[in-house]
Amino acid sequence: METETFQSSDSGRSARPLKHVQHVTFDNPLELELGGRLPEITVAFETYGRLNAAKDNAILICHALSGDSHVARHDDNDDPGWWEIMVGPGKPIDTDRYFVVCPNALGGCRGTTGPNSRNPETGKLYGDDFPTITTRDIVETHRRLIDYLGIDNLLGVIGGSMGGQQVLTWATSYPERVAGAVALATSARLTTQALAFDIVGRNAIRRDANFEGGRYLEKGTAPAAGLALARMLGHITYLSPQAMREKFGADRFEPREFTTQFEKRFSVGSYLAYQGDKFVERFDANSYLKLSLAMDLFDLGGTPEKLSQNLSKSLCRWLIISFTSDWLFPPEQSLEMTNVLIPLRKPVSYCNIVSSCGHDAFLLEDDLPIYGELVRAFLDNVHNGTPREVEDDALDVYAPTSIFGSHLRNQRIDHDQIVRLIQPTASVLDLGCGRGSLLVKLRANGNRGLMGLELNQEDVLVCLQRGLNVVQADLNSGLDPFSDGQFDYIVLSHTLQAVRDVERLISEMLRVGKRSIVSFPNFAYYKLRKMLYEDGRSPMSSGLLRHQWYNTPNIRFFTIADFEEFCRERGIRIHERIALDTEEGKLIDEEANLFADMAIFVISR
Amino acid sequence: METETFQSSDSGRSARPLKHVQHVTFDNPLELELGGRLPEITVAFETYGRLNAAKDNAILICHALSGDSHVARHDDNDDPGWWEIMVGPGKPIDTDRYFVVCPNALGGCRGTTGPNSRNPETGKLYGDDFPTITTRDIVETHRRLIDYLGIDNLLGVIGGSMGGQQVLTWATSYPERVAGAVALATSARLTTQALAFDIVGRNAIRRDANFEGGRYLEKGTAPAAGLALARMLGHITYLSPQAMREKFGADRFEPREFTTQFEKRFSVGSYLAYQGDKFVERFDANSYLKLSLAMDLFDLGGTPEKLSQNLSKSLCRWLIISFTSDWLFPPEQSLEMTNVLIPLRKPVSYCNIVSSCGHDAFLLEDDLPIYGELVRAFLDNVHNGTPREVEDDALDVYAPTSIFGSHLRNQRIDHDQIVRLIQPTASVLDLGCGRGSLLVKLRANGNRGLMGLELNQEDVLVCLQRGLNVVQADLNSGLDPFSDGQFDYIVLSHTLQAVRDVERLISEMLRVGKRSIVSFPNFAYYKLRKMLYEDGRSPMSSGLLRHQWYNTPNIRFFTIADFEEFCRERGIRIHERIALDTEEGKLIDEEANLFADMAIFVISR
Repeated sequence: METETFQSSDSGRSARPLKHVQHVTFDNPLELELGGRLPEITVAFETYGRLNAAKDNAILICHALSGDSHVARHDDNDDPGWWEIMVGPGKPIDTDRYFVVCPNALGGCRGTTGPNSRNPETGKLYGDDFPTITTRDIVETHRRLIDYLGIDNLLGVIGGSMGGQQVLTWATSYPERVAGAVALATSARLTTQALAFDIVGRNAIRRDANFEGGRYLEKGTAPAAGLALARMLGHITYLSPQAMREKFGADRFEPREFTTQFEKRFSVGSYLAYQGDKFVERFDANSYLKLSLAMDLFDLGGTPEKLSQNLSKSLCRWLIISFTSDWLFPPEQSLEMTNVLIPLRKPVSYCNIVSSCGHDAFLLEDDLPIYGELVRAFLDNVHNGTPREVEDDALDVYAPTSIFGSHLRNQRIDHDQIVRLIQPTASVLDLGCGRGSLLVKLRANGNRGLMGLELNQEDVLVCLQRGLNVVQADLNSGLDPFSDGQFDYIVLSHTLQAVRDVERLISEMLRVGKRSIVSFPNFAYYKLRKMLYEDGRSPMSSGLLRHQWYNTPNIRFFTIADFEEFCRERGIRIHERIALDTEEGKLIDEEANLFADMAIFVISR
Repeated sequence: METETFQSSDSGRSARPLKHVQHVTFDNPLELELGGRLPEITVAFETYGRLNAAKDNAILICHALSGDSHVARHDDNDDPGWWEIMVGPGKPIDTDRYFVVCPNALGGCRGTTGPNSRNPETGKLYGDDFPTITTRDIVETHRRLIDYLGIDNLLGVIGGSMGGQQVLTWATSYPERVAGAVALATSARLTTQALAFDIVGRNAIRRDANFEGGRYLEKGTAPAAGLALARMLGHITYLSPQAMREKFGADRFEPREFTTQFEKRFSVGSYLAYQGDKFVERFDANSYLKLSLAMDLFDLGGTPEKLSQNLSKSLCRWLIISFTSDWLFPPEQSLEMTNVLIPLRKPVSYCNIVSSCGHDAFLLEDDLPIYGELVRAFLDNVHNGTPREVEDDALDVYAPTSIFGSHLRNQRIDHDQIVRLIQPTASVLDLGCGRGSLLVKLRANGNRGLMGLELNQEDVLVCLQRGLNVVQADLNSGLDPFSDGQFDYIVLSHTLQAVRDVERLISEMLRVGKRSIVSFPNFAYYKLRKMLYEDGRSPMSSGLLRHQWYNTPNIRFFTIADFEEFCRERGIRIHERIALDTEEGKLIDEEANLFADMAIFVISR
């Protein structure tokens, strides 16, 4: 087994002193959220890039439980930082453009005041007497730093895991000071399961015979076994089951040999022992206790109502990112926050990135092409508001559910019709928005309050690059989070025929949109009728060149007449019906169910 | 918080002495699998019911890590056992019918020889000197007991979790002595993740200052903190994340008050502390070390090839059960074993029960109506081979994908045709077998080597009650586990129109079956053609009474001509085509694509 097998996410941090770290000491006391006070606070931090004259390019990065201020190297001779892949010149958080600040957290052990600092009032090390701190206290400390640096408004606050909790706190405690919030692999509060793991970890530290009631530093000892056990447990929760299998499945019975007092059977056992031992060299047990408890106490709302109350305070744009295999901060929790922000009409984008890396994903290179570029695009949007120009390519015309053939390669006659139907003042939600072509047209037309839902993560990224707010969602899950009448228009363009629960989706559209626009291929088009009637073959429209009856993503086959009856039976009002022959590129006025290959309906309750 | 909130699965075991336990000592030494020997072995066990004259009604129950011989109460005054809900008069493992034996495992601490026994050669307690044992050694011990009880062949060996590992070992080490094997919530080897949790637990015990190198009993102490930590960790893994949220989500910040040396914040924290403390009262740390290591060392094959080599030795019928929310022994692992048994042509049934109870599910009442009845039906089948008569009810005719209307309520004209097509000597796999109607007809016709695949768990249960081998499976996942030409016939009756990946499924059928029989509704039936052509409406066959274009489960629309072209293009041979007008109940000879509402094809590569 190679040494690098043992490198993971943030475990590569060394115990060496940081070269470029700066310190600032605030001698006004900090009153803590849960009572008690710290007479003075020192904050260790590092900065990258330059604050511009307008002071509108500052980004605060919040580290996770075992991180520190060294987020990236400062020069070629410097040690790499814990988020080296994200922060630096030309990188997603581009230090050529942005002024990046990364402080060590309050309660930590890498320069900022924490349990292994000396209490100026007693002259003794705090140890376990260090008071219980909360995420709010950590953020309050960093607010002092931001003030000290002369920054009024942060372009972005960014962090994952425990760092994400700080992002949520910034956005809701200092809403007017945050323009963009990026929360990765985090949640409004820990799952009960994650909380339980933390508790076992803390118990392992406190019940270590060398813990000495937290005064181990004075006694020259340390609860090494307990801290290592907590770290081992942490490591299991940072990795996905798949990643663990891939790393340690094949050579299960071949542990790496090295000196440790922990069990040495099994390859994964030697990995855990190594990580545990190594962590003890660089981290302080009391810091671990304080920071892990701060994570556990963080609670932005255990119910959607409470969460909504808190998130309603935010004024920033949001980017929320989760990872499919993260079971410590599962995607449902990120989705929950997104779903609370949506009806609050906060500008939010969300992406659940397909990943096998577990919670660690946000620190690893594997999924960087997605999450890194999402962050880059988001910061771009918040900073200068000029979205990138993206060509609508063939993909957009040839979406799997498209009925269009080559005759529509460079035009979307249906989109032009839909844009015409929507007043330039109206807000619009586009369901299955793809790469955002329709929304971009609407924006050019003057529309604001635009939002897209899209399943494909690459398309979500393109939408974000085009400056749109987009939430990754499966239309088959409905529109539950949206509030009644939230949008002037909801558009479902060429997608209904691929939807499983048609009734539910239409009913949800009618609830959420004041008007809904639905377009679909007409199965009763005369050429299609003939195919079945005369040839006895499953009808296939000319655009469905690549799809046959056995592999088309379209699973609902219906006609203009079918849809009209569907509306009639449910008392759905039809305001307008546009029938098109897309091959001829013309509107059909009479006998639409026979001569149109496509229809656009404007409906409402 | 109520006391009973803290009762879970096997945690209700008391430390009180067991009243009905018997002991037998074998004084011939046991040579252990990994070397070393035990000079003599005592086995503690309990029995229920009576061994019949034929001695063919004996069932061995294997307990999990922290269990013991007391699987159920012996009388009304007795303490309840750890599987009280499953074992007793009239219960799924019916002690009125079966002779049930439940021994304590080797290495345990409840009567069978283990680390807290005295080594007869030295007169000292074994402690940590107790040798490393394996699942094989545990089974070997119980084999001695079974011999001692005069039982040649076991009707069933049943167990979950660690008990399931013993079931797998029995079935592959003593194949001729096991008629039926029931493996619940278990696997061929632990996931790397589960293994890692065990390692952390053992490290917590061994690094406890009171462990004293395993000689704590002599020193009058015990590694209580370490054992409790291991147990806490175990408890987290036994529960599903959902179950934890439901139990401890709402009152997160309201711990129960009691005396403990563990952290007392958070409701889940007090639960873990309680479980940890309680476990220490009744369990021995060295036993925990030995048994948990035995679980970790268990390895029936880390690759499908090795697993196949081992499982190929088995001669029993198999029932494999997993639970959807079990993340300690995830369903994929049970499915992996099932998928290895299938091409070995071993009689196997498998069900992945929808449950929110996590790994604990097999010990809890919530899902008993399914897993209990599956076990009951399976034992019934193995014991007397007389399957229960189950009426085909309307459900079978009105399956969601059915095209049949009321005119077919009491007959399945297509089934009669299919039975006619299959020689009485042929083996048959029925895809989407529902409640097994076709398979039962084939069995009555003389066919053997019958097997069904079905998605719905209630239908899986009915199939088992009818004496069939049935594997729960989604046809959209294909037929990968089956070997080439494994069945003489594969039947796909009225299901193709609901399948997403038609090409893949047909191709898999042609690989696995020497002949395949496919029946489907003909979309070019003249009445349907007219609906589209004349009325401009989506065609709806008379049987689809309850379904419309927007809610039918049928997602593929095709005709006899379409299917014939599909076959022609792929070089698929059509051996026979039967066209039916099911409304008239007659065969169609000419112009089938126009006059038949249904077709049956016999095809092969």
